[in-house]
Amino acid sequence: MAHYKELKREAYEANIALPAKGLINLTFGNASAVDRKRGVFAIKPSGVGYDDLRPEDMVIVDFEGERVEGKLNPSSDTPTHRRLLTAYPQIGGVVHTHSSHATAFAQAGRAIPIFGTTHADYFNGDVPVTRKMTPQEISTAYEWETGNVIVECIGNIDPLDLPGVLVNRHAPFTWGVSVAKAVEVAVAVECIAQMAIMSLQLAPSLPQIETELLTKHFQRKHGPNAYYGQKPPPT
Amino acid sequence: MAHYKELKREAYEANIALPAKGLINLTFGNASAVDRKRGVFAIKPSGVGYDDLRPEDMVIVDFEGERVEGKLNPSSDTPTHRRLLTAYPQIGGVVHTHSSHATAFAQAGRAIPIFGTTHADYFNGDVPVTRKMTPQEISTAYEWETGNVIVECIGNIDPLDLPGVLVNRHAPFTWGVSVAKAVEVAVAVECIAQMAIMSLQLAPSLPQIETELLTKHFQRKHGPNAYYGQKPPPT
Amino acid sequence: MAHYKELKREAYEANIALPAKGLINLTFGNASAVDRKRGVFAIKPSGVGYDDLRPEDMVIVDFEGERVEGKLNPSSDTPTHRRLLTAYPQIGGVVHTHSSHATAFAQAGRAIPIFGTTHADYFNGDVPVTRKMTPQEISTAYEWETGNVIVECIGNIDPLDLPGVLVNRHAPFTWGVSVAKAVEVAVAVECIAQMAIMSLQLAPSLPQIETELLTKHFQRKHGPNAYYGQKPPPT
Amino acid sequence: MAHYKELKREAYEANIALPAKGLINLTFGNASAVDRKRGVFAIKPSGVGYDDLRPEDMVIVDFEGERVEGKLNPSSDTPTHRRLLTAYPQIGGVVHTHSSHATAFAQAGRAIPIFGTTHADYFNGDVPVTRKMTPQEISTAYEWETGNVIVECIGNIDPLDLPGVLVNRHAPFTWGVSVAKAVEVAVAVECIAQMAIMSLQLAPSLPQIETELLTKHFQRKHGPNAYYGQKPPPT
Repeated sequence: MAHYKELKREAYEANIALPAKGLINLTFGNASAVDRKRGVFAIKPSGVGYDDLRPEDMVIVDFEGERVEGKLNPSSDTPTHRRLLTAYPQIGGVVHTHSSHATAFAQAGRAIPIFGTTHADYFNGDVPVTRKMTPQEISTAYEWETGNVIVECIGNIDPLDLPGVLVNRHAPFTWGVSVAKAVEVAVAVECIAQMAIMSLQLAPSLPQIETELLTKHFQRKHGPNAYYGQKPPPT
Repeated sequence: MAHYKELKREAYEANIALPAKGLINLTFGNASAVDRKRGVFAIKPSGVGYDDLRPEDMVIVDFEGERVEGKLNPSSDTPTHRRLLTAYPQIGGVVHTHSSHATAFAQAGRAIPIFGTTHADYFNGDVPVTRKMTPQEISTAYEWETGNVIVECIGNIDPLDLPGVLVNRHAPFTWGVSVAKAVEVAVAVECIAQMAIMSLQLAPSLPQIETELLTKHFQRKHGPNAYYGQKPPPT
Repeated sequence: MAHYKELKREAYEANIALPAKGLINLTFGNASAVDRKRGVFAIKPSGVGYDDLRPEDMVIVDFEGERVEGKLNPSSDTPTHRRLLTAYPQIGGVVHTHSSHATAFAQAGRAIPIFGTTHADYFNGDVPVTRKMTPQEISTAYEWETGNVIVECIGNIDPLDLPGVLVNRHAPFTWGVSVAKAVEVAVAVECIAQMAIMSLQLAPSLPQIETELLTKHFQRKHGPNAYYGQKPPPT
Repeated sequence: MAHYKELKREAYEANIALPAKGLINLTFGNASAVDRKRGVFAIKPSGVGYDDLRPEDMVIVDFEGERVEGKLNPSSDTPTHRRLLTAYPQIGGVVHTHSSHATAFAQAGRAIPIFGTTHADYFNGDVPVTRKMTPQEISTAYEWETGNVIVECIGNIDPLDLPGVLVNRHAPFTWGVSVAKAVEVAVAVECIAQMAIMSLQLAPSLPQIETELLTKHFQRKHGPNAYYGQKPPPT
């Protein structure tokens, strides 16, 4: 249907950006973009290679998880996206990757410690790692429960102030006011994970960045006094 | 002969994918594709650079190791491919690379430990490393014996459930229902080796992934209840 | 105005070289080029993606920090550039990146130790790291004070003999007789940081390069007896 | 002169291959090709960027070190090339890079230990590191003396059986029957250095490869019984 064309284009652009930016091997990842008015989101079809992907292949799914348009199966991670998109009306898209350095932290069950200003431009503290999922969560509605442990990890924080987490033993999920912003955060998460692992190699007991510097950098880009960029950022 | 044209094309595509995907430097690798009906396989010629390779350069070899078609010498690793292709009628191709991170594990004589879901999407446990070859195995039919230690390492497992191993002191070999699938596994093996080495750096005593999560992810892509992708996968 | 066209072009070329050379992700960096006669410099606009950047987008700023030409906001790091450009009349441009390996050292608060001739071709010793900034420096004129700690770190050395430093918890800044030279130093700093972290892994107590070899290589490219290249270098 | 055209082309192709294969940043490296009949070699001009390099820029130098043709200064490393080319009539070219992983070993003063078959395809043992140069060697004919410590390190071995060494605190030099072969060895040295540093991370006390396997692989490509490739290799 023609009225999903723009939404599919938006989701498509985000999905193909993931391998282009070096965040994805094979089909290890996916992106979704939401249309709040229509109560649907567009997401990558499951297991389709990025080289073959076309905008019209995006699958339209509603907030109950029903496929509204498209012939292909949506990503097997669709319930995780749906859990996040319904929990947080302020976000416009979700990105999931298995980017190497961030996934190394996730596998190790460690948060990405906040060591410098690169990190503080995007996060107000460590990139947290969720608790491990229980055998019951894994054996029942696994992908939906994956969303639940993310929501539990975010807690009372505004998700736009904590735009990504690592799922334990799994990999990062990120989000933002738009799916394009979620892609940007996914790039930042991989970048700061790479820097953090090397800083830990150089200084195994390195404490986190000093509070004043963290706050300064985070507020350069977030909140009422933000002064980075060409206009106040949307958050 | 014209009736090998498709087989050569299939083997050629797999071979040139290896440097394109960053798995191979110089001529450190090769791929073979089998035609079970005709009892032959197509394989890369020995020592020919990937830039110069053409589909018609692929060498056709039968299951006794005789060159059936082609003027060039087949890969020096041909007996290893032949050993695997004859041992396992369910596989359609074999890939050998010296991809950096996987080879680092092989050289160290260590299996790639299964730390996360990326790994569990392809393997039901560690990517094993073979025992070391004996001086006698090395000094006689070296490449054939390389195949033998791989077969010994696989044991009674269905090779489609264990689609790759590391040869001790050497490098990875992978396989699948098709040579294209074997290339995909080779990409996955390098990717999970890179993540594993970093997870070990972050958590030197990291235990393997919890059984429930491992089983869940492996079965998302394998077996009768697989639900990843657009149709039940062939295995 | 047409008389800034060349200056904008020079700054633009330096800015787009940064992602092209792998020194920058997202918008983590910027470059400025100075016109001493007119008392102005051209710098990247804040938060504009490199893909979208055009030469005419460069912002012209004078030495008091006033925007002389351009509709976009200049980089939020403009006061740091201005501090360096006004402190050192012998430099023609400044580059700031968050290149991964150099930033890993900056985050860890460690200088990049001088271990080999690659490093000695550009620096006469370690690439120093500044002291940490005080809460007061951070909360007031943060970006200007960032320039101040760099100036304090350089001390009485000719900045052309010490063409870059790491800002603690932040990332590298480099400079040179031209902004093109500052880009070259930024590449060198990332390269030697990568080598240094690996040399430290291989030899954790590695002492710095021997004085004679350091002096020999530094003087091949610097000073009255330089003999590298096609003519005596400008410094 | 037209009769150097082919030689210049050969040297040019080798030089531009170095950044194309990721072995060189900036102008950190050079390649030379020899014409034994005319008693000259072609080498990169000093400090000229690879993007700007043209075949006709190659400088022709004779075995006494005199420039025979060309207006540009030859590489500052020319005496090192000349030392090796005159010491070893069996080699056809020399390559020098500062490739990252190999240089990390050189800076640390460590040989690259031979851990696997990738390494054994090119070297019959560790890639050795020279002794450190003396202050006197450094302060006099530095680049010529660099060649001397390489020659001292090779000792009585046929340089075609030991096609590269690491100069202590500096970086790798490689050679071969042709400059194209020297480029190939330079790629191999970087590749095995990268694997070795990771194998050491996985197994800090890893012993070298077993003798039988080393000999087998080295002799697959070298000596009278070589069977790799399409014909007996030239060595």
